[in-house]
Formats: sequence, C-alpha cells, structure tokens
Amino acid sequence: MKRIFISSRGNPEHLAGLFRAELPTHEVLTAQPQPGDAAVQYIVVGRPSPGVIASVPGLELVVSLNAGIEHLLNSGEVPDGLPIVRLVDDGLALGMADWVLAQALAWHRNILVYKDLQAEKHWAPQAEKLARERKVTVLGAGALGMPVAEHFVRFGFDTRVWSRSGRAVEHARAFAGKEQLLAAVEGSDILVNLLPLTAETANIVDKTVLGALAHGGFFINGARGAHVVDADLIAALDAGQLSGAALDVFRTEPLPADDPLWSHPKILVSPHVAAPTHAHTAVKEMAENIRRFERGESLPHLVDRTLGY
Amino acid sequence: MKRIFISSRGNPEHLAGLFRAELPTHEVLTAQPQPGDAAVQYIVVGRPSPGVIASVPGLELVVSLNAGIEHLLNSGEVPDGLPIVRLVDDGLALGMADWVLAQALAWHRNILVYKDLQAEKHWAPQAEKLARERKVTVLGAGALGMPVAEHFVRFGFDTRVWSRSGRAVEHARAFAGKEQLLAAVEGSDILVNLLPLTAETANIVDKTVLGALAHGGFFINGARGAHVVDADLIAALDAGQLSGAALDVFRTEPLPADDPLWSHPKILVSPHVAAPTHAHTAVKEMAENIRRFERGESLPHLVDRTLGY
Ligand SMILES: NC(=O)c1ccc[n+]([C@@H]2O[C@H](COP(=O)([O-])OP(=O)(O)OC[C@H]3O[C@@H](n4cnc5c(N)ncnc54)[C@H](OP(=O)(O)O)[C@@H]3O)[C@@H](O)[C@H]2O)c1
Ligand SMILES: NC(=O)c1ccc[n+]([C@@H]2O[C@H](COP(=O)([O-])OP(=O)(O)OC[C@H]3O[C@@H](n4cnc5c(N)ncnc54)[C@H](OP(=O)(O)O)[C@@H]3O)[C@@H](O)[C@H]2O)c1
Repeated sequence: MKRIFISSRGNPEHLAGLFRAELPTHEVLTAQPQPGDAAVQYIVVGRPSPGVIASVPGLELVVSLNAGIEHLLNSGEVPDGLPIVRLVDDGLALGMADWVLAQALAWHRNILVYKDLQAEKHWAPQAEKLARERKVTVLGAGALGMPVAEHFVRFGFDTRVWSRSGRAVEHARAFAGKEQLLAAVEGSDILVNLLPLTAETANIVDKTVLGALAHGGFFINGARGAHVVDADLIAALDAGQLSGAALDVFRTEPLPADDPLWSHPKILVSPHVAAPTHAHTAVKEMAENIRRFERGESLPHLVDRTLGY
Repeated sequence: MKRIFISSRGNPEHLAGLFRAELPTHEVLTAQPQPGDAAVQYIVVGRPSPGVIASVPGLELVVSLNAGIEHLLNSGEVPDGLPIVRLVDDGLALGMADWVLAQALAWHRNILVYKDLQAEKHWAPQAEKLARERKVTVLGAGALGMPVAEHFVRFGFDTRVWSRSGRAVEHARAFAGKEQLLAAVEGSDILVNLLPLTAETANIVDKTVLGALAHGGFFINGARGAHVVDADLIAALDAGQLSGAALDVFRTEPLPADDPLWSHPKILVSPHVAAPTHAHTAVKEMAENIRRFERGESLPHLVDRTLGY
C-alpha cells in the first residue's frame, strides 16, 4: 500500500479526509513519519518546514499544494531528481480570471472615479472608452495567463501576451522572451502580471517596464510580490505615469503595517485572494496526478527544475 | 435627392458631418425645415421637441438616436404607422457588457470590501466564492442582455435569462414571460436589468422580485430608472436582503441632489454612462438602416409599436 504524507500548515486533517475519499487504497498520514517507519511515496506540501522532506523515507513525488513552486525550489529542501508536480486546478484558473477581470474592468469603467464623484453628488460622465480603444498586456500565458488573456480578447481589448516561448492566444498578439518584453508592454493601458517567480522574472516589473506603458495606465499583480520593484511602482504612481495598481501579492505576507503600499491612495491591496485553492477541486487534481504517476503516464504540470517553473 | 433632418440636442453638426460622409448622395439638414420646404424623408431624433416631427413634411422613417425608444413613444409625437428604427450598434452592446461585468465582478470579488479593509490596514481574506457558486439572472435577452448573459456564462456563473419569448442563451437557463419571472429570479445572487421600458416592464423591480433573490444579493440596473420601485430597493438594502446595488439610470436624470439614492451607503451611482453612444459607429449603423430601407429590405431593429420596444 502506497502512503501519502500531508505536510500542510493549513488544515491537514481536512485535506487527508478528501485524499482518503479520492484514493481509498492509499494510506494517508498527517503526522511526520518516525525514523524506521515504512516508506512514504508522496508528500503533499506547500512551503516545506526545514528537514521535513529529507526525513521522509522513500519519496517518489512531491505534490505541491500551490500553483507557484518558488518556495519549494528556493527552500533547497527538494533533492535534485525528485520530481515536483504543481497544482493546476480549474478553480484556481477560474478564480484568477474573475479577479483580474474585476480589477481591469472596474478601472476601465471608472467605478472608483464615480464612487468619489458620488460622495460629492456630482453627476459627471467621464469620457468612456470602448475596450477596443485600450491595449492590455498579459505577462505569462500559462494555466492562469491564458484564460485571462482570452477574457480580455472577448471583451474586445487590444490584447498582447508575453511568454518565454511566444505561446499563441487567438486574436491576441504573442511576444516571446526577454528581447520582446518592451515591445509587448509598449503603450499598454493595462499590464497584468501572471508569471511564475524565477531567477529570470524576479524584479521584472521595474521602472523600464512601467515607463513603457501608456501614460496613466493601470497595473495588476496576481502572481508574486517579488516580481515588482516596489519603489519603482510607487514612483510611477506618484509621477502619474500609472493611474493605479491592484496588488494581491507582496514580498512579505501579510503585508506589514508599516509598508507604504497599504496607504498609497492609488493602490488597491487585497490579501492574496485572487485565486484561492479550493480544497475539493484541488485534491481531485492532486489525486489524479498521483494516479497518472502510478500508471506511468506523463504529468502535464511537472516542474522543470532548470527553468524554475 | 432624399433629405435627412438631424434633430438632436447634442451636437447636430458633428452628426451631420458623419451622415454626409456615409450618405454623400443625400442632403443632410440640421435646421428645422420651414413650411413649404421640400419633403424630408428621414428624421434622426432622440427625445423629440414638441411639434418637431409633425412639422417635417413627407417623413417616411424615424431614426432613433437611442437604443431605448420609450421617450419617442411616450411623447405621442410619432404618428401611428410611421416606422421607427432604434439604434443597435456594437459599441453600445460592448459598452454595456463591460460595464455590467465590471459591476458584477467587482461585487463578486469584494473589491470595495477590501478597499474598506485596506483603510484599516487589515489583512483579512474573505470567503471567496467561485463564479459557479453564484446564480445570476439577466432580465432581457436582447441586443444588450444577450452578450451580457454570454459573458456571465463564460466566467462560469450559474446564469438564467428572462425574456418575453424565452430566448435561448447557450449554457444558461431561459425563462419566458410574466408567469416565469419569479422562477427566473428565485435565489439569484446577482440581478441585472436590461429590459426596455414599456407598460409591461415599468416598476418591475419591486419588493416581490427583490425579495425572491438570495439574501445579501446585488442588483445592477443598466436599463431605465422607471423599471425600479426606488422605495422597495432602499428597503431591501436597509433590511440586508440586498448587500448593494449599482445604478446607471434614474427616474430623473441628472439625479437630483436631494435624491436619497445619491447618499445611500450601499448604492453605487453612475451618471448614465454604461453604454454611451459612440457617434462614429452609431452613424454607420443609422446610415445602413436608411440604405436598407431604401432598398426595401427589412429592418432588424424596427420598433414594434404594440409591444412598445
Ligand atoms: N494570487 C494568487 O492567488 C495566485 C494563485 C495561484 C498562482 N499564482 C501565481 O501565478 C503564477 C503563474 O501560474 P501559472 O499556473 O499560470 O504558471 P504556468 O502555467 O507555469 O505559466 C507560466 C507562464 O509564464 C511564462 N514564463 C515563465 N518564465 C518566463 C520568462 N522568463 N519569460 C517570459 N515568460 C515566462 C511561461 O512561458 P511558456 O508558456 O513559454 O512556458 C508561461 O506562459 C504562479 O507561479 C504563482 O506565482 C498566484
Ligand atoms: N444605460 C445605458 O447607457 C443604456 C444604453 C442603451 C440602452 N439602454 C437600455 O437598455 C434597454 C434594452 O436594450 P436592448 O437593445 O437590449 O433591447 P432589445 O434588443 O429590444 O431587447 C429587449 C429584451 O427584453 C425582453 N422583453 C421586452 N419586454 C418584455 C416583457 N414584457 N417581459 C419579458 N421580457 C421582455 C425582450 O424579449 P424578446 O427577446 O422575447 O423580445 C428582449 O429579450 C433599452 O431599452 C434601454 O432602455 C441603456
């Protein structure tokens, strides 16, 4: 009987119950195995506690509780050669899609501008643009970026997508790799970040990228705080180069009380809620990955350790 | 040579220029014809000034500057038998789609809730629902309601659409006519009104309809103020039956300073901007209607005087 160890800081018993229902022929543990215990083939983990992976005998696969796996890689806790499969469930992608579009459309249609005017009982129609008069760039065309870009296309935005390989999205323009980054963002009114955090993408949203946007643009970060040079973001907002930013992710979470992002009048802070993991759908997905692994099938969301995502 | 009279309170010269470019073989007037002037076949008009239509000799077609034509019908200025074609241009439908979805998604993803929490630097994830856990009802499945319902379906909302004839929208449930109104709204979290204003639909959003929604629901009005019994709306908000409402249209516009809707803490007021007419695309559409009329073709958006829309 194969064994699964749930090493979650959240609610491991709840996850274990769901795993037992999905994989009744497996044994599911929530307590750290003791030295001398039988082998445990799978560990289900988000941000690993130091030493926890090394102490589990016989591991064959690390099942990430998150879509982003930079914590797993940067922890140095996962031995080379031990495969990692990351979480991609449709709940994540659906959640990210409606969160990003909520932020983008609310800005596009001036919801907060009208709220301020309402406080003064001021009836003042703004120059409303059609979506096709706005350029949008989505950084990342993966499990999350692709459906987001598709929604932008359907609303009629002039949509551009940037990825490593130049992945195509119908009716959007595709850009590939570092050399095309500035061409991809040049003149955009809305910039959306849905990249994984890797050595290549850390600090990518800096003064050069923000400066290439259309004057008065809007920035939406649904990926990771460390993608953004916060000082450059604040400078761009203060200079009017950006008219606003919606941030769901931060270098330190929860965002510390003294962080200037909290109180900047043009920044919307949300507490890492864009695409919460929904335990039911996530466990179905993770269990299916274990089944595929055991049948010797390929895993579509296996992490490439060299690329870092 | 056929003649077109632009009777607009807005910027008739701008419209006339666009009409001349579209229909160079027609004569386009912006001044009221004098008694004894040659016949004018077409009048382009929104809310007609008293007597203006009767004073134009030889009219064959009234071209509405608006999608909603209740002002034309209720004015009593359009003689029976004189056809009216209303404005349906893709700019209108695109504008309404992104405005309604902006309001719906902003509510769904708690944008204003997080803004209030941010003011207190309070990091407090809310229970975020997936779109498929929310029911949405769209009243009206016409030029505006249909694309709006399609967007809701694409985001994964459990979508219902109500119309006179039970018009079908793929992956949504269709409801038809007065008998099915309560079934269509029962238990919905988001109610969107995109009906035309007729004798049948005036005051349709009342305590019965609002009371049938799920507790804590959200109401979005993009159609006309007179669809709503304002006192019932305010009572539902005050009782917590509704958690909010986004209103773009009002019984009197601009909304008078003493109207309680301005200052209600759960109401978002916007100044009739959901789907502004974009002159360029609108004139193309109106000119095409005139061409179809002259070729003896049917007009897809001819008003049914009996139904009132
Ligand atoms: N806020 C939240 O609640 C939340 C929830 C879940 C995930 N996230 C974040 O969202 C991120 C994206 O997730 P995902 O599932 O969409 O990832 P994914 O499927 O791996 O997609 C990553 C995309 O980024 C592109 N990319 C990677 N490195 C690049 C580089 N150096 N230059 C250009 N493009 C590059 C990839 O290009 P190719 O297509 O060419 O490979 C791919 O299109 C996660 O890593 C996580 O940080 C946030
Ligand atoms: N806020 C703004 O900026 C703005 C801009 C433009 C328009 N509007 C408003 O939006 C309204 C809708 O425009 P539209 O172009 O979508 O109209 P439309 O194409 O005529 O569609 C009307 C829809 O309402 C349904 N309907 C009409 N009477 C009904 C009744 N008694 N019971 C049930 N359903 C009924 C129709 O049913 P069938 O399909 O069975 O005929 C149809 O689906 C306009 O009349 C105008 O008031 C607002």
